[in-house]
Amino acid sequence: MRYVVIMAGGSGTRLWPLSRQGRPKQLLELFDGRSLLRLAYERLVGLVEPDHILVCTGRAYADDVARQLPELPHGNILGEPEGRDSLNAVAWSAAEVAHRDADGVVAMVTADQVISPVEEFQRSLRVAFEVAESRPMALVTLGVVPTSPHTGYGYLHRAEEVPGFPGVHRVAQFKEKPSREVAEAYLATGEYWWNAGMFVWRAATLLGQLDQLLPHTAETVRTIVAQPERLDELFPKLTRISVDYAVMEPASAGRTDGEVVSVPLAIDWRDVGGFVSLAELLPHDAHGNAVEGRAVSLDSAGCVVINTAGDEHVVATIGLEDHLVVATPTATLVAHLGDAERVKELVAIVREVAGPRFA
Amino acid sequence: MRYVVIMAGGSGTRLWPLSRQGRPKQLLELFDGRSLLRLAYERLVGLVEPDHILVCTGRAYADDVARQLPELPHGNILGEPEGRDSLNAVAWSAAEVAHRDADGVVAMVTADQVISPVEEFQRSLRVAFEVAESRPMALVTLGVVPTSPHTGYGYLHRAEEVPGFPGVHRVAQFKEKPSREVAEAYLATGEYWWNAGMFVWRAATLLGQLDQLLPHTAETVRTIVAQPERLDELFPKLTRISVDYAVMEPASAGRTDGEVVSVPLAIDWRDVGGFVSLAELLPHDAHGNAVEGRAVSLDSAGCVVINTAGDEHVVATIGLEDHLVVATPTATLVAHLGDAERVKELVAIVREVAGPRFA
Repeated sequence: MRYVVIMAGGSGTRLWPLSRQGRPKQLLELFDGRSLLRLAYERLVGLVEPDHILVCTGRAYADDVARQLPELPHGNILGEPEGRDSLNAVAWSAAEVAHRDADGVVAMVTADQVISPVEEFQRSLRVAFEVAESRPMALVTLGVVPTSPHTGYGYLHRAEEVPGFPGVHRVAQFKEKPSREVAEAYLATGEYWWNAGMFVWRAATLLGQLDQLLPHTAETVRTIVAQPERLDELFPKLTRISVDYAVMEPASAGRTDGEVVSVPLAIDWRDVGGFVSLAELLPHDAHGNAVEGRAVSLDSAGCVVINTAGDEHVVATIGLEDHLVVATPTATLVAHLGDAERVKELVAIVREVAGPRFA
Repeated sequence: MRYVVIMAGGSGTRLWPLSRQGRPKQLLELFDGRSLLRLAYERLVGLVEPDHILVCTGRAYADDVARQLPELPHGNILGEPEGRDSLNAVAWSAAEVAHRDADGVVAMVTADQVISPVEEFQRSLRVAFEVAESRPMALVTLGVVPTSPHTGYGYLHRAEEVPGFPGVHRVAQFKEKPSREVAEAYLATGEYWWNAGMFVWRAATLLGQLDQLLPHTAETVRTIVAQPERLDELFPKLTRISVDYAVMEPASAGRTDGEVVSVPLAIDWRDVGGFVSLAELLPHDAHGNAVEGRAVSLDSAGCVVINTAGDEHVVATIGLEDHLVVATPTATLVAHLGDAERVKELVAIVREVAGPRFA
């Protein structure tokens, strides 16, 4: 059977004060009241049944996840006692699926992006499932067909096409985030795709890779699934490492019996990494202000105004140009949009000056 | 005996969202946690006893006044059912004092300004009490010795000195807010003082003036004091007029038996009319930011940041210059300081777009 695990961990300070400890960006209900997690879930409707969808998240966020995804059985929310990077989310999820269904095939998808069209995403995911079902050793990674020489993503260098799957390629190599020149060269060849950080494989195959590469991890996640009461004891001892470093790169280099292939995603892929990219996804008024929540403006243009401080709060601006205003119950952020990337730096000062509970 | 009435009515939208309906600027606790009302009260310590101090305010604000001035007997807070301009506050207060003490002399003081030094204010007020006690028909108005050709105040044109009171003058005429040129001419003569809107007189004398000028008002306020249960019925029927128009100007023009004299106030007189004047009174950080409440800034200078949204809220700014940021539980205002005077215009839009409860 087919399963999907939505990975929704991490907090991230680049959207502070929207995203805070205890409130990661995937859970922010910024899109007509829906969160990135909810959008990720809705992208799966028609592809798999709700009881075959799992979410791997921080334990602190489990209640919010359950509230936003009431369709999910409660046992399908895997709450990590602490963040241990992507491999352990992937490994634990795979062990959970394998425990339920020894032949289960699982797609690991992210919830950090807004993706359109959804039909194209589903079409690619179906192809990826078919590849994993017909080629038992396949480690399928999804590759976004690049639309720009983006320097914020890793790249996949594709090799020859996989027989029987037009457009699906073996992966020759994983590349780190490139410089501008290198990214432009990648784009010119047409042989490089963005590394989406989404994977499809037989759960047993992924665990088999770990038996070869990180046997302690493989053993630990199997133990956690068999003896859930030991989660708090065992999870924090797992090696902190990304799935790319731990599995995909060694496998693509021939160090395991895994076969790394990539299915292309020809989609609009928008990362919501910071306020500028978030603003592109919000509705805009006639003066180019991107607005979410209750806001009133007078002679303001090109601003991003986000008000999540509640129904009984209004944000009002006069004469602002290209400014960011974010109001939440616990903090107000005002910055020039050109400084939006400095939020992380600001949060460090907030932690120091105002105290950690505000950060 | 001597009495003081602090007039603390009015709401005013120029400090929105700090000042809102139900929260006039005199009650905002912006000065080390003290309000303008509290400062006005503390200016009287040593001059009169607390049970001889009354506050005339809107009924809706009476509880806040009582909380901020716990020293006052409850019966000393006169809560107007609605604002009916300054004359009626003055007239009701005078009737209340006359009812308690037929020979009572009362100073009517405002709570709209920050005044220093307090000793000089008290010295002038003592002189004004002495004038009113020794000259039974005196209507004493306090005149601020001007330090600039301010166009935001009315002026008093002083005439000859009052015998026995050096520096105290009869008033020849009241002048409306002047143009810049006229104000400069006033300043050059040295014969004009700012009209402080503060008065001292025997309560019976003020009521006698009203008997001559506005007999219905005189009768009504006496009835209200004698039959307090009729306040709601009678107060709203009072003529809406200022004390200057109703009494001081006619009396200075010889239309009554009153004697209008002015005692100078040689003080620093700071009106808190808007955010720019408020900011001058707040502490500033090393970058010239005027800050009240919990705030953190990164590369911001010349800003005014006021956070009254509560102890569990922080305001953080990056890269702002000469901006105004105000955070309250119900609203956030962000503006360029050059647009701070447009707040009134904004409030009209807020009322229209977000709804009257936000204005």
